[in-house]
Amino acid sequence: MESICCAQVLYDFTAEPGNNELTVQEGEILTLTNQSIGSGWVEARNSRGNVGLVPEDYIEVKTILIISFVFVISLLYLEHIDFDIHRSLVFQSVILLLSVMVILCHMAVGSVYSFDEEWDDDSDDGKSTGGYGGSQAEEGGTMQRGGAHSTMKLSLNKFPGFSKTPNPEVYLLTKHISKGDDRLPIYMGEVGPVWLYPQIQLDCVVADPKKGSKMYGLKSYIEYQITPNTTNRPVNHRYKHFDWLYERLVEKFACALPIPCLPDKQVTGRFEEEFIKMRMERLQGWMSRMCRHPVISNSDVFQLFLNYRDEKEWKLGKRKAEKDEIVGVKIFSNIDPELPELDPAQVEQKYEMYSQFTRSMDNSVKELLAVGHLHWKRCTGPLQKEYRQIGKAFQNLSSVFNTSAYPREYTLKEALTATGKTYEEIAEIVAGQPKKDLHFLMETNHEYKGLLGCFPDTIAVHKAAIDKVKEADHLVVMNKISQQDKLIMEKNLSTMSYALQAEMNHFHSNRIYDYNRLVQFYLEEQVKFYETIAEKLKKALGQYTTM
Amino acid sequence: MESICCAQVLYDFTAEPGNNELTVQEGEILTLTNQSIGSGWVEARNSRGNVGLVPEDYIEVKTILIISFVFVISLLYLEHIDFDIHRSLVFQSVILLLSVMVILCHMAVGSVYSFDEEWDDDSDDGKSTGGYGGSQAEEGGTMQRGGAHSTMKLSLNKFPGFSKTPNPEVYLLTKHISKGDDRLPIYMGEVGPVWLYPQIQLDCVVADPKKGSKMYGLKSYIEYQITPNTTNRPVNHRYKHFDWLYERLVEKFACALPIPCLPDKQVTGRFEEEFIKMRMERLQGWMSRMCRHPVISNSDVFQLFLNYRDEKEWKLGKRKAEKDEIVGVKIFSNIDPELPELDPAQVEQKYEMYSQFTRSMDNSVKELLAVGHLHWKRCTGPLQKEYRQIGKAFQNLSSVFNTSAYPREYTLKEALTATGKTYEEIAEIVAGQPKKDLHFLMETNHEYKGLLGCFPDTIAVHKAAIDKVKEADHLVVMNKISQQDKLIMEKNLSTMSYALQAEMNHFHSNRIYDYNRLVQFYLEEQVKFYETIAEKLKKALGQYTTM
Repeated sequence: MESICCAQVLYDFTAEPGNNELTVQEGEILTLTNQSIGSGWVEARNSRGNVGLVPEDYIEVKTILIISFVFVISLLYLEHIDFDIHRSLVFQSVILLLSVMVILCHMAVGSVYSFDEEWDDDSDDGKSTGGYGGSQAEEGGTMQRGGAHSTMKLSLNKFPGFSKTPNPEVYLLTKHISKGDDRLPIYMGEVGPVWLYPQIQLDCVVADPKKGSKMYGLKSYIEYQITPNTTNRPVNHRYKHFDWLYERLVEKFACALPIPCLPDKQVTGRFEEEFIKMRMERLQGWMSRMCRHPVISNSDVFQLFLNYRDEKEWKLGKRKAEKDEIVGVKIFSNIDPELPELDPAQVEQKYEMYSQFTRSMDNSVKELLAVGHLHWKRCTGPLQKEYRQIGKAFQNLSSVFNTSAYPREYTLKEALTATGKTYEEIAEIVAGQPKKDLHFLMETNHEYKGLLGCFPDTIAVHKAAIDKVKEADHLVVMNKISQQDKLIMEKNLSTMSYALQAEMNHFHSNRIYDYNRLVQFYLEEQVKFYETIAEKLKKALGQYTTM
Repeated sequence: MESICCAQVLYDFTAEPGNNELTVQEGEILTLTNQSIGSGWVEARNSRGNVGLVPEDYIEVKTILIISFVFVISLLYLEHIDFDIHRSLVFQSVILLLSVMVILCHMAVGSVYSFDEEWDDDSDDGKSTGGYGGSQAEEGGTMQRGGAHSTMKLSLNKFPGFSKTPNPEVYLLTKHISKGDDRLPIYMGEVGPVWLYPQIQLDCVVADPKKGSKMYGLKSYIEYQITPNTTNRPVNHRYKHFDWLYERLVEKFACALPIPCLPDKQVTGRFEEEFIKMRMERLQGWMSRMCRHPVISNSDVFQLFLNYRDEKEWKLGKRKAEKDEIVGVKIFSNIDPELPELDPAQVEQKYEMYSQFTRSMDNSVKELLAVGHLHWKRCTGPLQKEYRQIGKAFQNLSSVFNTSAYPREYTLKEALTATGKTYEEIAEIVAGQPKKDLHFLMETNHEYKGLLGCFPDTIAVHKAAIDKVKEADHLVVMNKISQQDKLIMEKNLSTMSYALQAEMNHFHSNRIYDYNRLVQFYLEEQVKFYETIAEKLKKALGQYTTM
């Protein structure tokens, strides 16, 4: 069993001294010596024979991946066969091959679930991992199963003619007249340029995860129920549908709006319920953020996702969305700021400010995650242990006193036992607290880390546009473009800038709301935490006789 | 300078990971690389070139000790010369030699005080170190300067004819009639046999440490003022006088009563005031414990120490005490239990119980000290650092938010700053707390550890007596002793047992009082601690806008 359980390290991880951890580097191959450690950790041995704990989110189990890879290829092949026509010999033999693999995988992983989820996810969203933070240690990630390496990936091959950063030239040189339905107006609000917000804010509830299966039970998956507040009619979606939606949103909006990644898929699935709960929680967070966005929530593809009435409507909508031509930089042609044109210098100044702010906030959020991660480990590790030891020491003293045969022992003995038990309770309170308050702080910061990780891509498009416009004078002289073209470019750049400003104002408004709520909640829980402990100690204190 | 600052390790010390500590073993020679670390730590390099922190109580600075040793020898020589007669050439040259050494030592240590204290202590109580716990790591010791290795040492060479354990035979075979003044009665109290307690409990205040000097300022010392509640008239004593008293009490009472060691002397004296304060606190603790003991407090030597009127009375009393013949096992001849004689089986049963209890309590106290020590280090080390980091992370986030140029930033920015500052305050509260509550818990347990360390010696005398009486039948048969002798032995053994019972009941009563007060105080301070933090967080919470 052990022989086949090896794993590749995805991210550098530095061991904390005294915690039995193992320092590993990206790309390193480890042998897994114990996968049942729990709490997101596995025990592994490196090539130098050192054994220690590694966060399971930092590694990729190799054997599973290889088999999964074959699997995915097979499935991709199957996808091209029309299921409704006939089940040919080819199909049957592929099924047979898959069955053998399923059994092999079950043997390797020891869990039906982990394999199925694995397969499901790998086939569904195989392209959505990696990216942002790939070479950095994941500060908050290890405490929270999975969700980490989030960034928006501009699906480059979907934008014909784009190299790394989508080239805004196509858009800049075109004179646009915003069309009716797709028009995305920008108004001057109290805080500056803002998107048009709907009267009633869309929201939805992601709930009720259910295990479904297809292909004669060979392939199982989890289906979530999403109920929008507008129709109050639930729709069902699998993770792969969320991922499809994500891909569409990236294609369509990512040049103008940072689209945060979906919560990550996970490699092993030993804690089925816990994982599903966590993924649901994160899908809920992602959906709520999308719902809150006036442009995204109002888009056809998003509406389809929430409101489709039957399979047919869903399939038709899907096909339509996939054929949408207003994607990439073309989205700016829909944007219609009813505001005075900005000159390129103003545009550049805004760009610099936003670029600087998002970078700084990214660093700050990472710092908070890092210290939160440390604190989490301290509370659930050494601090819990220490309070337990204090509790035990008092109780042992009480036990010893109990053997004195001295007639006036009773009160003190009882009081010391109570004190010891109180400290044991405190140990559990301390260890349980991070889940109560730090969890939310970490999750939200994690989400923000993901969101902030998308800004550089989005902002890069603006930078490219600014550079193009800077070249315009030269191009006019060279007779490559007309003076008229230059003016169009400047107008279009102004439109892009308004889009960025509206988006930043949306971000700021959400950020202030989120962090206000977040820290408030954290402090409330912390106050309760300290008050609870004080209360418990007061009760123990009451057992002593006053002298 | 550095070259001469090497030190020998007195006790094994195991480094805690992540604290920059250095694991050292008894006997190892270290080079001191930084003596100005503070809080009881020095930085040292071992022979393998590893550098790290070591508790200064665990090491003995070598150069100082060597010079001190020569010094002590010289002084001992001086002590034998009558100062009042003449100052011969010999004396003058010794003074000259000493002066040169003083200068050398000053150069080596960089402090007048440390040398003088050193010298004073080494010459005064050179024999009172070592003993109990010598080979064990000192659990609570490092946080509290000095006071550790306490056990009573039966001054064996003062008990003629005793090998390791004082031999109770001399006493057992003698028929005693208790004399008037020295009689130590034992009564049956509510809790069993008890000493005769005085109407008013003696107590004293140790205060007002003053630096004195003699031998033309060459030798300086600290003199403490001790004021008993009986006379309210202060007397002055140096540490060496306390040590003299301790030696007398051990000589006279240690076979019957455990005499706890004095607080230890210290090797280096960099924190003059802190050290003097700590020693005074511990001398106060020791004196109070002695005052509380009905037998000790009533003894001539103890009364002399507290009540002498002038140098002459002190010197006469000293000489008388040193000539006291009722020492060692003879003390039992003064004991007069007005209670029915116990048979040897009853005696042995009591012995077993006390032996077991004191051993168990010793272990339990050591456990409490060990966990207290850990907790102290955690609070003043990693926890303080972590809360500071949390504070800093919030403040940094606030600074970043402040650069957004978004108009609705102010409240959140201010609230986050307040939150950050609150966590920085909490960091200091957490780090300062051990001095407020854990200190007293550690000190008292430390005192008990010392006291409990004396029981084995005292109890061993009883065990030896039990064994002698067990042999009595055989000796009667062999005609070595008469039947009458045997009955006398049994009666005397019964008297010894009553003494032990009275002493244990005294111990239990004090123990219950002390631990009740101790844990009560600790819990009170802990409650305040948690309430203070909750209060501070509540205040920070109030800065957020409710949404």
